[in-house]
Amino acid sequence: MSHAPRPLRLALGIDVGGTTIKGGVVSVEDGARVVEGIESFDKDVPAAEIWRRVAALVQRLEGACGQTFQRIGVGCAGLFDRGTGEVLASANMPNLEGHYLTSGVEAALGGTREVRLENDANVAAFGEQWWGAGQGVKDLVLVTLGTGVGGGVVIDDELFLGPRGNAGELGHVVVYPKPSGGPYDAPYAKELECPCGSYGCGERLISASAASRRARDAGLTGDLRAIADAARNSNGPERALMHTIGRDLGATLATMVTLFDVGHFAIGGGFGAALDVLQSGAEEVLLERRYGDAPVTLIGAKLGGDAGWIGAARLTIETA
Amino acid sequence: MSHAPRPLRLALGIDVGGTTIKGGVVSVEDGARVVEGIESFDKDVPAAEIWRRVAALVQRLEGACGQTFQRIGVGCAGLFDRGTGEVLASANMPNLEGHYLTSGVEAALGGTREVRLENDANVAAFGEQWWGAGQGVKDLVLVTLGTGVGGGVVIDDELFLGPRGNAGELGHVVVYPKPSGGPYDAPYAKELECPCGSYGCGERLISASAASRRARDAGLTGDLRAIADAARNSNGPERALMHTIGRDLGATLATMVTLFDVGHFAIGGGFGAALDVLQSGAEEVLLERRYGDAPVTLIGAKLGGDAGWIGAARLTIETA
Repeated sequence: MSHAPRPLRLALGIDVGGTTIKGGVVSVEDGARVVEGIESFDKDVPAAEIWRRVAALVQRLEGACGQTFQRIGVGCAGLFDRGTGEVLASANMPNLEGHYLTSGVEAALGGTREVRLENDANVAAFGEQWWGAGQGVKDLVLVTLGTGVGGGVVIDDELFLGPRGNAGELGHVVVYPKPSGGPYDAPYAKELECPCGSYGCGERLISASAASRRARDAGLTGDLRAIADAARNSNGPERALMHTIGRDLGATLATMVTLFDVGHFAIGGGFGAALDVLQSGAEEVLLERRYGDAPVTLIGAKLGGDAGWIGAARLTIETA
Repeated sequence: MSHAPRPLRLALGIDVGGTTIKGGVVSVEDGARVVEGIESFDKDVPAAEIWRRVAALVQRLEGACGQTFQRIGVGCAGLFDRGTGEVLASANMPNLEGHYLTSGVEAALGGTREVRLENDANVAAFGEQWWGAGQGVKDLVLVTLGTGVGGGVVIDDELFLGPRGNAGELGHVVVYPKPSGGPYDAPYAKELECPCGSYGCGERLISASAASRRARDAGLTGDLRAIADAARNSNGPERALMHTIGRDLGATLATMVTLFDVGHFAIGGGFGAALDVLQSGAEEVLLERRYGDAPVTLIGAKLGGDAGWIGAARLTIETA
């Protein structure tokens, strides 16, 4: 008696953000990326056209791997109504606001598939914990240092969303409190005002844009790659700056350890490439602030721009 | 045909802390406290004697309500190994350290019951969310302002413990960062050094002891009841101080909203009685820092010193 080889269990995910739609098919068994693809769109394209392009990419990926998928995972930048799939707010894709992503993509696919939606930061964390920096551990916080600071929290192999679905806004943990006349105030610093309405958020201190601004304020180039290189190669003002920014990163991580008791962080985003020169400052603050002696590990994110679609694919294999 | 009246479903809980053992039996159906009791012990009593007194109180409560309980819930101040029930650390009851509470109490009860253990801060939050300030909502953070700042996090009717069991150390969220030569530093303040090893923790700012110290530093009496009364009755330095301390309380709450997206806080502990004069400052910071526009409610804890045993009783009715 002979057996046909058991087909690989595969999952399909899509990541919609900025002006691109990325997607791919990943093996559920070993994380192998079976096929990948990308679509671009202009900023002024209407929502319905984006749903069609998502559907077209899905079908192209299915054609390439010779399999159709009953469930499609979609990550998208923005804030959603998880019940209805409505895009409530999306800073970079305002055309999507008020439109229904889940049903829109389901209709564009002919109405026979189920779409599962989650925001881009959460699917990236979900992907990294699955087949990236968190492989082999059950909890991971992903912190992405890009134009802003994003991230997501995975605990016990599940996304932590909080009771209202918007937990883990770790870029908006306040690192320096707003002065208000109390005895422990620092001087007011206008550059720490955050567009979110708050003051002193991590996003104003450790994002790529904030780091670049801080470098220029210190009389250095705003080119973070050059700053990071200089910090690696000599003990000058660039190394001091990266250490200081690393401390502010550590402040955000330490707060998450105190409240979530998580032990694993992955740092991603463009500025995440400077983790090696941020790490000493971050670990200094983690040691200063840690409550108890449970270890905390801090490593670079591993999936880069693919974390989103890989995490979106994972949405389809979890029980809903 | 007639039915015998269905017996009330009851649960029994015990709270061990300082030099007292409190306990009681609560109705699972309506939160009615059927019977309560208390035992005292001296600081130098060995662990085995404490287990015996817990067992004696259990049997006294059972006698009073005419029912025995297969499962007993115990809350206890300290840090535990949840797997073995060993007390790893207990600042106020060092005699318990290295001893096994769960099996110790089970043995003292004759070896036929199951003991479920959780720390005192967590059971208090679990109790408040069940039959106190959180009645009718599914998520609640309890913040107790006593000698220290404690508390616990309940999400979706379950204790949030984190991947390693020590989540929610909300008294040690840093409110003012330690100065380290960066551009946004405040002056160093020795009184913000925390025994936990960190600096600027909420516990150094909003606990009863910290508030009393801050009052004396401001040239006022250290009697918090008098301070709170003066703040209620006139717009003087006492009101300004309570507003400033309220802001520091708000900083801790706001960080929890940003990371957990919780919407309900209960303030307990001795200094929690001053919530009415702390509230304006706390709400000011919650408004300044909140991300998104989901509402946050802030009310006084309702169960006082009974929250612990009531929450411990609840441990016995959850599926484990």
